[in-house]
Amino acid sequence: MEDIYIIGVGMTQFGRLLDRSVYDMVGEAVTLALKDANCETGDIGSAYYATLTNGLFQGQTAIPGPIAMRRLGIEGIPVFTVENACASGSSAFNLATLALRAGSCHIALAVGVEKMNIPDKAKMFSAFDGGWDVSTAEQNKATLMAMGDGVVPPPGTMSERPYSVFMDVYAALCRHHMKTYGTTQRQIAAVAAKNHQHSVHNPLSQYREPCTIEQVLAAPPISYPLTLLMCSPISDGAAAVVLCNANGLKRLQGAAGRAVRVLASVVQTGSTRGLDEPSKIVAHRAAVKAYEQAGVSPSDVDVAEVHDATAMGEILNTESLMLVPIGEGGPAAERGEFTVGGRIPVNPSGGLESKGHPIGATGLGQIHELVTQIRGEAGKRQVEGARIAIQENGGGLFGIEEAVVVVNIFARQ
Amino acid sequence: MEDIYIIGVGMTQFGRLLDRSVYDMVGEAVTLALKDANCETGDIGSAYYATLTNGLFQGQTAIPGPIAMRRLGIEGIPVFTVENACASGSSAFNLATLALRAGSCHIALAVGVEKMNIPDKAKMFSAFDGGWDVSTAEQNKATLMAMGDGVVPPPGTMSERPYSVFMDVYAALCRHHMKTYGTTQRQIAAVAAKNHQHSVHNPLSQYREPCTIEQVLAAPPISYPLTLLMCSPISDGAAAVVLCNANGLKRLQGAAGRAVRVLASVVQTGSTRGLDEPSKIVAHRAAVKAYEQAGVSPSDVDVAEVHDATAMGEILNTESLMLVPIGEGGPAAERGEFTVGGRIPVNPSGGLESKGHPIGATGLGQIHELVTQIRGEAGKRQVEGARIAIQENGGGLFGIEEAVVVVNIFARQ
Repeated sequence: MEDIYIIGVGMTQFGRLLDRSVYDMVGEAVTLALKDANCETGDIGSAYYATLTNGLFQGQTAIPGPIAMRRLGIEGIPVFTVENACASGSSAFNLATLALRAGSCHIALAVGVEKMNIPDKAKMFSAFDGGWDVSTAEQNKATLMAMGDGVVPPPGTMSERPYSVFMDVYAALCRHHMKTYGTTQRQIAAVAAKNHQHSVHNPLSQYREPCTIEQVLAAPPISYPLTLLMCSPISDGAAAVVLCNANGLKRLQGAAGRAVRVLASVVQTGSTRGLDEPSKIVAHRAAVKAYEQAGVSPSDVDVAEVHDATAMGEILNTESLMLVPIGEGGPAAERGEFTVGGRIPVNPSGGLESKGHPIGATGLGQIHELVTQIRGEAGKRQVEGARIAIQENGGGLFGIEEAVVVVNIFARQ
Repeated sequence: MEDIYIIGVGMTQFGRLLDRSVYDMVGEAVTLALKDANCETGDIGSAYYATLTNGLFQGQTAIPGPIAMRRLGIEGIPVFTVENACASGSSAFNLATLALRAGSCHIALAVGVEKMNIPDKAKMFSAFDGGWDVSTAEQNKATLMAMGDGVVPPPGTMSERPYSVFMDVYAALCRHHMKTYGTTQRQIAAVAAKNHQHSVHNPLSQYREPCTIEQVLAAPPISYPLTLLMCSPISDGAAAVVLCNANGLKRLQGAAGRAVRVLASVVQTGSTRGLDEPSKIVAHRAAVKAYEQAGVSPSDVDVAEVHDATAMGEILNTESLMLVPIGEGGPAAERGEFTVGGRIPVNPSGGLESKGHPIGATGLGQIHELVTQIRGEAGKRQVEGARIAIQENGGGLFGIEEAVVVVNIFARQ
């Protein structure tokens, strides 16, 4: 693959940011990324804008990307609004790499945003489900049965509060993994405790409270075996990444020293029925392509950010990325292998569970963390010697319906 | 620019298709395009899916593209949902050309769809405005004043029915052009009459009734000087285009003979305040880039499809594309220069006004027409000797706010 570089990253605080608008957050993230890249708005040759809920929540269905860019003075270039559910941000990133590889411009911008915390809660949950309705516990049970999972949650273990059907899907994936590989609820809790611990040192994280495995297990149940602290919150935030090709890098002398190489960028759709065939899982198939494109193997990876919309996501995705053998994600987490300082640190940022999950921004937030790690600028959460990093960002309904996965691999120059 | 080819086009009937679903229409358009390209679903290396209203009307905000593709068996590849208002279809096309130029795949699919005719009319109009509210005549007058146009429509000339604010914006653009260049209402009507006449011979057109200039002038007033027959209708429909690079063309021997070359594909954002400086109009700036990329000049163009959301759009856009001098669009239309058989035939398909305007499909429908023309397969609406074709597809709020324009240039091999 032609050389593509990340030369600037920027993100807002993720969190419950009731007083911040979409434009305000986008402005901050883009301004920080441009400053980091040592370039001006006029240097941007094309822009890719990721959001899921802008039409539904902001009442602006048409050209949110071009309008947000115009407010920043980024105009007269190709701008696209891109949607791939929770993988929208990384999809925007991938499109930027294509434009650069095609030589249609030399410097490109990927930016993602979501404002999820709005007063009308029902509307909020509806949209978090990507247009499906608010789920009741009864509906969610029906969904589980439709998955062929066949395990009805024990009485009293499902929350009666309205919450995303995704949590029930993840819960079913948990139970399947527990039954098949012997994964324990404690191991899943170990992932969550580790991620909450990581984000203590991430000033941009939504939560920064350390918690123990016991505290995770004692948190309010959402859908067995998931508790509240194992699930990603509803978040607001924006993140932006400035990329360039070799020509762009020549132009931006100041940024060249801190540039991070993009070794691979793979987007892949697929249905993920057939949980008993891990090799068919979309994330695994995308990872195989990405390692091939990058010319590296799983053992070369120093640090990973994976899509832990629940703690179970981290177990499944580290397995799909071949960072641990299939079925070994739970024990590895419990042994501390995914902790900063461990064998293969995962989600040093705190992950979606603790850093937050503002959908359109999520994938670009992961890239922000990995670039920070590769540059050695992650402070107390720094993975020592981080040289090669892998990112996995997924969207859609894993396990029961269509999904999209983006896997990117980055390296120190 | 590296050689990119269109090897297959397909579209549904455009119209008021109450009994057709989004998936049904997409399926037909894609199947026709694949058949035309003589390839299989498994040949598609990436897909770009254009829609504006899917979240608002279909209640499906997340991954409509991947889900629609999966239903057709197109999976395991990168799929993106793309939005650029009325220019969404052409934006999807442009992204497909980038993927091919980057060499990330050899055969790509661009598909667009919209289902606008739904029982809940208020909702419909709201979305047609891209998330703005239904406009009342009073609100629209306020919009006009905010434009600095300063011309209040004569009493009784504004419709009291709810209709898109776009029609008032176009009406203000008409009046500005009339005042500045002496364009007449009759000239605008001549465009509409010509387009309705063209689509008599287009079996996929929403309307196929011929009409005279007098009939256009006598139609119900929408917003002075626009009448109903000068405005594009609310439409349902889908269109698809299969593209490839040189490697893809080698693989598809059967299709090579009918392939059409993409000489240029330009996407450009911009605000279009400052109507008195035609050189600053986004469509003009995009056209300048496209001619340069293609290495052809306006006098080389044999046929054009331009964004005539109202008849005025055709006058403005033929001027911006330099097919006629600034201010000469109206007289040229009245002299029959834009008619099939005339000097430079424009919108032989019938244009948005008569063929229809299903937003996400519109740009790809224009490409469908130009490919058909270049292949010499347009029957009674064939432009003799059509060899070089230009397409202009715009989205957003021209004249008062941000807009996106796509200009593509195609040629016979």
